[in-house]
Amino acid sequence: MPVSATDTRRGAGEPRRRADAERNIAAIIDAATTCFIERPQVSMADVAKAAGVGRVTLYAHFSSREALLEAVLEHVIVHSAGIIEAEAPDQGAADEALRRLVKSSWRELDRHRRLFELAQRELGPQRLRAYHDKALAHVERLIGRGRKEGAFRTDLPLHWLVTTFYSLLHSAGEEVNARRLRKSDVAEVLTATLLPALSPP
Amino acid sequence: MPVSATDTRRGAGEPRRRADAERNIAAIIDAATTCFIERPQVSMADVAKAAGVGRVTLYAHFSSREALLEAVLEHVIVHSAGIIEAEAPDQGAADEALRRLVKSSWRELDRHRRLFELAQRELGPQRLRAYHDKALAHVERLIGRGRKEGAFRTDLPLHWLVTTFYSLLHSAGEEVNARRLRKSDVAEVLTATLLPALSPP
Repeated sequence: MPVSATDTRRGAGEPRRRADAERNIAAIIDAATTCFIERPQVSMADVAKAAGVGRVTLYAHFSSREALLEAVLEHVIVHSAGIIEAEAPDQGAADEALRRLVKSSWRELDRHRRLFELAQRELGPQRLRAYHDKALAHVERLIGRGRKEGAFRTDLPLHWLVTTFYSLLHSAGEEVNARRLRKSDVAEVLTATLLPALSPP
Repeated sequence: MPVSATDTRRGAGEPRRRADAERNIAAIIDAATTCFIERPQVSMADVAKAAGVGRVTLYAHFSSREALLEAVLEHVIVHSAGIIEAEAPDQGAADEALRRLVKSSWRELDRHRRLFELAQRELGPQRLRAYHDKALAHVERLIGRGRKEGAFRTDLPLHWLVTTFYSLLHSAGEEVNARRLRKSDVAEVLTATLLPALSPP
C-alpha cells in the first residue's frame, strides 16, 4: 500500500496526518474500483473527483494510473480471497470442496470481470496472474489436499493444475463478456470441465 | 490485407505499381514479424529500416503500429493453420488426431510465443482470440467429429470445448514464458489435461 510522503515526517501531528492519509487512500480505492469497472478509460482527474480528494492528494498516494489500477486490483483480490476462504475450501471431500470453490471464485470474478479485462489489457496476463496468487492460495491448498487424499491426480505438476483452474475460470469470464456463455451456466460448465481434468487418470 | 492508394488508380503502370506494392507489403510483414518477436517495443522507423522501405511507404500500407501488428498476427496464424492442416487432424481416431493437433499447435504457438504475448498486451485477449479463429477451425472440426463418433463429450457446448483447448494451450505458453513449465513437457501435459476434459463423463 503506497504511503503518503507526509507520513514519514516525525512530529505531534503525525498520527492525525496518518489517519487522514489512510482515509484518503480508502476513499480513492473505493471510488477507483467503481470508476474502473464502469468506465475503463476513466481519467485520474475523474477518479479524484469521485473520491472527493484533490488531484495533488491523489498523485501523492498513487503516482500513476497504473499504480492506482494495481492498488485496486490488490484490494479487490484480497477482499475476494477473504470471501472465498469463508466458504471453507479446507473442509469436506475434496471434490465437493472444489465445487464450492468454483462457485465462490466465479461469483467473485464475475463481480470484477470488467476490472480484470482492463488489467489484462493494461498490465498484461503475467502481472494479472501474479496479483491473483493470494486468491489462488486456496486453490493450491485444496488441490494439494485432494492429491494426498487420492481424489486428484498426481501425475501432473501441482502448479499446472492450479493454472488449469485459473485459466478456465478466466476464460469463462471472457466467454461471458463475448456473450458466448450464459452467466448462469458458468459454475456448472466449469465444474464439469475441471473435475475430470483434475481426477487421477 | 491493406492496399496502397496507388493501386486504386487506373493506367498503364497499374500492374507494375501493384506488384511493387505487394513486394513491399510482403517485405514489411516479414521484417515486422522478426522485429516484434525480437524487440516487442520496436518502432515503426526501425521496422521500415529492417524491411528496406521508406517510412512513407510503410505508413502508406499500415497506418499505425497497431495495424501492422494485426497484419503480422493474421499472417502468422494463417501460415500456422496451413502447417497444422498438413498433419491431417481430419483423419484417424479422434483422440489420436487430438494428440497430433496438440503437438502441432504447441509447436506453432511456441515459435510465436513472444508475438502473442505482445498482441495479448497491445490488442487485448478478445481480439487475439478472434485472430485465432482460422487456426481454431481445425480444433472445432476435430472436436465436432469426435462428438459424433462418441469419443468426445456432448454435454457441454462445442464452443466451450474449443475455448478449453485454446485457453490451456495459451496458458502453457505463459507458463513456459514464466519458466514454470519446461517446453519439452508441454505437449504431454496438455494432452493429459485435455483428453479427460473432453471425454464423455
